[in-house]
Amino acid sequence: MDAGMMAVKCGIPAAFDLAGWSRHHLDRVERAMGQWVGDGAPAGLGEAMRYAVLDGGKRLRPLLVLAAYEAVHNGAGPTGSDTALRAGMDEATLRAACAVELIHAYSLVHDDMPCMDNDVLRRGKPTVHVQFGEAQALLAGDALQAFAFELLTPDDARIPPAVQATLCRQLARAAGSAGMAGGQAIDLASVGLALTQEQLRQMHRLKTGALLQASVMMGAACGGAGATAQKALEGYGAALGLAFQVVDDILDVVADSATLGKTAGKDAASDKPTYVSLLGLAPAQAHAQELLAQAHAALAASGLADTRALAALADMVVNRSY
Amino acid sequence: MDAGMMAVKCGIPAAFDLAGWSRHHLDRVERAMGQWVGDGAPAGLGEAMRYAVLDGGKRLRPLLVLAAYEAVHNGAGPTGSDTALRAGMDEATLRAACAVELIHAYSLVHDDMPCMDNDVLRRGKPTVHVQFGEAQALLAGDALQAFAFELLTPDDARIPPAVQATLCRQLARAAGSAGMAGGQAIDLASVGLALTQEQLRQMHRLKTGALLQASVMMGAACGGAGATAQKALEGYGAALGLAFQVVDDILDVVADSATLGKTAGKDAASDKPTYVSLLGLAPAQAHAQELLAQAHAALAASGLADTRALAALADMVVNRSY
Repeated sequence: MDAGMMAVKCGIPAAFDLAGWSRHHLDRVERAMGQWVGDGAPAGLGEAMRYAVLDGGKRLRPLLVLAAYEAVHNGAGPTGSDTALRAGMDEATLRAACAVELIHAYSLVHDDMPCMDNDVLRRGKPTVHVQFGEAQALLAGDALQAFAFELLTPDDARIPPAVQATLCRQLARAAGSAGMAGGQAIDLASVGLALTQEQLRQMHRLKTGALLQASVMMGAACGGAGATAQKALEGYGAALGLAFQVVDDILDVVADSATLGKTAGKDAASDKPTYVSLLGLAPAQAHAQELLAQAHAALAASGLADTRALAALADMVVNRSY
Repeated sequence: MDAGMMAVKCGIPAAFDLAGWSRHHLDRVERAMGQWVGDGAPAGLGEAMRYAVLDGGKRLRPLLVLAAYEAVHNGAGPTGSDTALRAGMDEATLRAACAVELIHAYSLVHDDMPCMDNDVLRRGKPTVHVQFGEAQALLAGDALQAFAFELLTPDDARIPPAVQATLCRQLARAAGSAGMAGGQAIDLASVGLALTQEQLRQMHRLKTGALLQASVMMGAACGGAGATAQKALEGYGAALGLAFQVVDDILDVVADSATLGKTAGKDAASDKPTYVSLLGLAPAQAHAQELLAQAHAALAASGLADTRALAALADMVVNRSY
């Protein structure tokens, strides 16, 4: 038992070491992805898939999967007693953590292409289509999406088929036309339009919120969350997902202003509706804090004993500077 | 019992009415896809998804799913006795039939894009990116892939989670980097190269063969095929998959654009290696007949009582004129 866990067991509030916790978990995720992604793919395609995925990034989605799983099975999850089942669920969670990141990575590859956002730089490196050509980028994105579902359905008897099917169901819905792809289509159709706050919320609920929320719920499913915890974590995921986007919109303005001395960033330049353009900067910042409070309130209502990692991730999402 | 079935029961060989059989089954498939595809998607995206899918096509893959299912459960499949389970498996099979077609449809949408084959005509109609723009075509393809996995994982207690997980596993592997997307990457890298017959075979085994074979095996899984039938159907699917491509290469040379509904002579014009360029026309035609014989031999070894639909589909694949 580490110091933090011991403090919780003794009823002493302990500062949660998010950096240490993340380092530990991301090490597993990075190793697993390094081993799995592009394995068995034709050379050029495999290289493009790995380039798209193994380049850092915040890994917020995998961390949400792992944090939700921990929160649930450290509580009263049904997997606590059976060691073999627990090993299977640990493996399922790791696979789910990688799968959500693959969906996120593929969406960035396709988003960056000339026919979409036409971005040439991502995380300081040439984007996939710049590096490998458009055709390979298109295929790499397609293959990454398929691979996410491969990861969720291993021929591994330790992971019950019901868990495999549930994870596929959650991921497919979050990625598809009623989730991420649907949100991107609304985004595409919204350039130059004056959206209401409700329309903007709906767009982002699909575009980024659905996959962030699914990350939380996939971790919860692996942990065997009960109905109360599930409902609370859905609320947490929804608030966190929306907060993520509001902060993205704020950073687009603030970061540009600081570095370039401009008052408007890329979103404004491309005439995209944002929370800042709709509400103004200060009200957008207040809205982000409001959503953070909602996320914390949902965790408090979850009945789970230790939600510190989830709480710290929400704080990180809202208070990040990049 | 219809006349064909009665003839089989009485031991009288009956001519199999593939056209009537297909009409009956495709009616279910078309109605299901018309109801499901694009449902709940944002307007523009949903329209593009429907345009990509609901435009005819031979529907070979759905027919293979349904024919394999029938062949297996009309034999000694474990689903014969339990009515509720049988209804669930019928539903799972219909969903699998639509799912493989969605994967096929999305691959055509992305394949036709300017950065890939740059085709403006498909089945006599403007391709999706011509009709809806490249960004929407990219998203529609992405959303169709996700939706295939959604279809396989309904919240429907009649379909056992083990069947849902198996279907997702089969489809993801066939669609991804060790299947269709991988084959397309090899195709991309092969333009202008002199491939050996073995390299050409490997490319097509992935590019088109994997999904055709998966169609057969997904139907077999829904029917609860035993080990002998599974092994035989794998052989049938492999032979049929390869035959399909050999015939495609032949038709590209001998048919005209009007008959094909797509641009004829494209392979030679774009310097793509084909069975015709490698073997010559007559040997390629002989090879197709050889593969057809292999497919029939596999069916004969399957131990299944009635494989007439599968046999007729193989005949159709090899003897088609478009």
